Amino acid sequence: MSAFATVLDELVTANRILAREGVVDSFGHVSVRHPDRDDRYVLSRARAPECIEIDDLMEFALDGAPIDARGRAPYAERFIHGAVYESRADVRAVVHHHSPSVIPFSVTAAPLSPIMHMCAGIGARVPTWDSRTAFGDTNLLVTTQEMARSLAAALGGRPAVLMRGHGAVVAGASIREVVFNSIYLQLNADLQMKARALGEIAFLTEGEIAAVLKTRGAFTYERAWEHWCRRAGRPYDLRPMDGPLAGR
Amino acid sequence: MSAFATVLDELVTANRILAREGVVDSFGHVSVRHPDRDDRYVLSRARAPECIEIDDLMEFALDGAPIDARGRAPYAERFIHGAVYESRADVRAVVHHHSPSVIPFSVTAAPLSPIMHMCAGIGARVPTWDSRTAFGDTNLLVTTQEMARSLAAALGGRPAVLMRGHGAVVAGASIREVVFNSIYLQLNADLQMKARALGEIAFLTEGEIAAVLKTRGAFTYERAWEHWCRRAGRPYDLRPMDGPLAGR
Amino acid sequence: MSAFATVLDELVTANRILAREGVVDSFGHVSVRHPDRDDRYVLSRARAPECIEIDDLMEFALDGAPIDARGRAPYAERFIHGAVYESRADVRAVVHHHSPSVIPFSVTAAPLSPIMHMCAGIGARVPTWDSRTAFGDTNLLVTTQEMARSLAAALGGRPAVLMRGHGAVVAGASIREVVFNSIYLQLNADLQMKARALGEIAFLTEGEIAAVLKTRGAFTYERAWEHWCRRAGRPYDLRPMDGPLAGR
Amino acid sequence: MSAFATVLDELVTANRILAREGVVDSFGHVSVRHPDRDDRYVLSRARAPECIEIDDLMEFALDGAPIDARGRAPYAERFIHGAVYESRADVRAVVHHHSPSVIPFSVTAAPLSPIMHMCAGIGARVPTWDSRTAFGDTNLLVTTQEMARSLAAALGGRPAVLMRGHGAVVAGASIREVVFNSIYLQLNADLQMKARALGEIAFLTEGEIAAVLKTRGAFTYERAWEHWCRRAGRPYDLRPMDGPLAGR
Repeated sequence: MSAFATVLDELVTANRILAREGVVDSFGHVSVRHPDRDDRYVLSRARAPECIEIDDLMEFALDGAPIDARGRAPYAERFIHGAVYESRADVRAVVHHHSPSVIPFSVTAAPLSPIMHMCAGIGARVPTWDSRTAFGDTNLLVTTQEMARSLAAALGGRPAVLMRGHGAVVAGASIREVVFNSIYLQLNADLQMKARALGEIAFLTEGEIAAVLKTRGAFTYERAWEHWCRRAGRPYDLRPMDGPLAGR
Repeated sequence: MSAFATVLDELVTANRILAREGVVDSFGHVSVRHPDRDDRYVLSRARAPECIEIDDLMEFALDGAPIDARGRAPYAERFIHGAVYESRADVRAVVHHHSPSVIPFSVTAAPLSPIMHMCAGIGARVPTWDSRTAFGDTNLLVTTQEMARSLAAALGGRPAVLMRGHGAVVAGASIREVVFNSIYLQLNADLQMKARALGEIAFLTEGEIAAVLKTRGAFTYERAWEHWCRRAGRPYDLRPMDGPLAGR
Repeated sequence: MSAFATVLDELVTANRILAREGVVDSFGHVSVRHPDRDDRYVLSRARAPECIEIDDLMEFALDGAPIDARGRAPYAERFIHGAVYESRADVRAVVHHHSPSVIPFSVTAAPLSPIMHMCAGIGARVPTWDSRTAFGDTNLLVTTQEMARSLAAALGGRPAVLMRGHGAVVAGASIREVVFNSIYLQLNADLQMKARALGEIAFLTEGEIAAVLKTRGAFTYERAWEHWCRRAGRPYDLRPMDGPLAGR
Repeated sequence: MSAFATVLDELVTANRILAREGVVDSFGHVSVRHPDRDDRYVLSRARAPECIEIDDLMEFALDGAPIDARGRAPYAERFIHGAVYESRADVRAVVHHHSPSVIPFSVTAAPLSPIMHMCAGIGARVPTWDSRTAFGDTNLLVTTQEMARSLAAALGGRPAVLMRGHGAVVAGASIREVVFNSIYLQLNADLQMKARALGEIAFLTEGEIAAVLKTRGAFTYERAWEHWCRRAGRPYDLRPMDGPLAGR
């Protein structure tokens, strides 16, 4: 497989994994920045993540214009992806999802913060963007570059942002990283809801979060990726890792 | 397939999807108004939704009289369907279910209202009908046209009504719509129970609910339908859509 | 199949269904009174319910003595079954289980009562038997006829009793009935835990419970049985019903 | 199969069971002390438990040094296992996991104690070790013998210890025992969270816990093991038991 074909295959797998792990249902999407052109990204046509095949993948300019649609209908909310790539040179993959564990934090004042080491990648405190603040009563969908830029500004340099009454965006340096952080964002939300009912929570300290992120390597994502591929019924092809092959 | 055969096939699929998604268990049912005769509806014989085959489907007059029973036993609560079709010309499909997420709202004073955009179709506030108010101590089953009319009156022009200690009714313009709103009614109930434990909830505003409903098209239901068909092991046959083919 | 062979087959199916629906895990058991001899009952050898085959089934006298063990080890807690059959001529099937939804009610003062019509068969209020009251600090297992009679006395004429820090016993007129009431006991416990968090609960009234039980027929159990057989991967063979074939 | 081959096969099965039952996700591990050499233990290379095959198993000295790595990367946290074997001659198997039910107890002051007889093996009160107490802000991983010894000291002679913001360690006399106690530790945590919401909990008494442990035999673990093997898709080979073949 060419490098580009490998990326497309990984993007299909990412969709299937996010569906299998319950992060997305019939809605939600994951994109990757084009490996050869920073001004483009790849995203499926409008289809449920669990159903996506390689031929569903389309290229887009950062303003959301499809490059070669061939009659395929794009996601109305594709602008989310372009606006994040536009504002963050470090970001190479983006997930937008409606995880049922995460949404309760988007509609209440309860802060979402790392409760265990595996979840440190969500950032010390996940902010919430409310479409109503700047855009008033809408259907909550991010269907313009203007709305998407407002959302990207709320994300800032962080790995994740919540969207009030809607879902979340997770951004990172690779497909494997954003899938990993999406799944552990969901787990963190679950754990936090359970722990709150038991009493005051000792969250990870800032120093601990920094220490986890500093020592996290590709092998962490890789271990989970093999496992999630198996659960999603996708072939797993070990990737050369960009860190030492030490395990965890 | 003829248009009628297509509807019957869709109705079988609707039963299987509602079972797969946990909205119905061994009980609950979904009907469709006859596509050619407004004074009839189609509903399975008395059987668990997950087990239903095409030959289980029966036609009924709006008063619940079977047209051609051929020895098949009907649901005792079929009257629910007829009474809703009788009172609502806009309704072409009806679900009655006992979703375990929804029932807690039927036995408490907690209001059930849209917490996220996908759930706007449940209506701004889902009312509760209590069989005991007009009929006293019964087995709670809606087994007469009189009880069914009382329930339909509580539904009014809305998309859904709860039944105290029993379940819910969801009514709409198509099979796909009532299945969609049943599943997202269940999700909304789940989300609301989780969010309540975190603090005060920012529900969708009336303006947001209106905006979602105004822009919701057949493509939204279609995206989910393909996904749910796959999960339920049913063939999926893309339907021509009655709106622009823009995705979400 | 002979009538007895049919009962044995149904008992295997009951074990598989209770495992599939999460009422039992590796532990728990279901018995049936011998169809031809009121002084005997049939119960599996000591094995996890999901693994049970026809050859695992053994006959016991009401005092727990195996009739023809052929080297098969019986459940240490088989006495539960005999003591209930001994004290209740109306009982023809018994389930003992550790449902994780039910146990929280056994260790707290929260009353367990029907919250919806499907659950009326659990009785107006499920009592709790505590082994410690009469027997002090034990391993909580009911391994003597004396302990089992104490438990049966707490059950009295009711359909179900909880066992503190242990589980529950459900007794009834048929295998299908005790399986049905075990599964809906579990559901009721789930629903009640959810509803409590929402506010004060409107339980079924005594009049409603009586009305449900009065009108409940074999067709209700049969509808669920077909569904549960399908989920448990067991063949389903429609049984002649002892009530009118009206559906629900 | 040789005795050693049987142990390796059982260790693979243990990994698969813990994954199937949700005690481990992509992370977590289970080891066994070498049956012929008390100064060695067997543990997989760094891989998700659900994916582990016999060739992934490696031998380690108690200080964590691999005996014959053949290029296989070990778990960074393997030190946990060696430190427990070093300090506890009675321990022949160890599980380290991140059960999502258990973690909430590690970050709050809520005590985790047996709520039902099946869970008595977790010990009267499960203590919590906090890496921060002696080691300050770290990535929370136990990657040195020094940290592992601190953790083993907190475990002491008990069957289980929690790790703040991280997970738990379960130690015991056999693979079957630590798998059993890991799964019932998870169940106990679930039950306790549910019961707390209902009111004050009557936990097992010290006398009851002692009575359960005194009468627990290999047949209890065996019954569950057959069941879990079936669920995990692993062959089950009945083991000669070291207690009387009386069932429970």
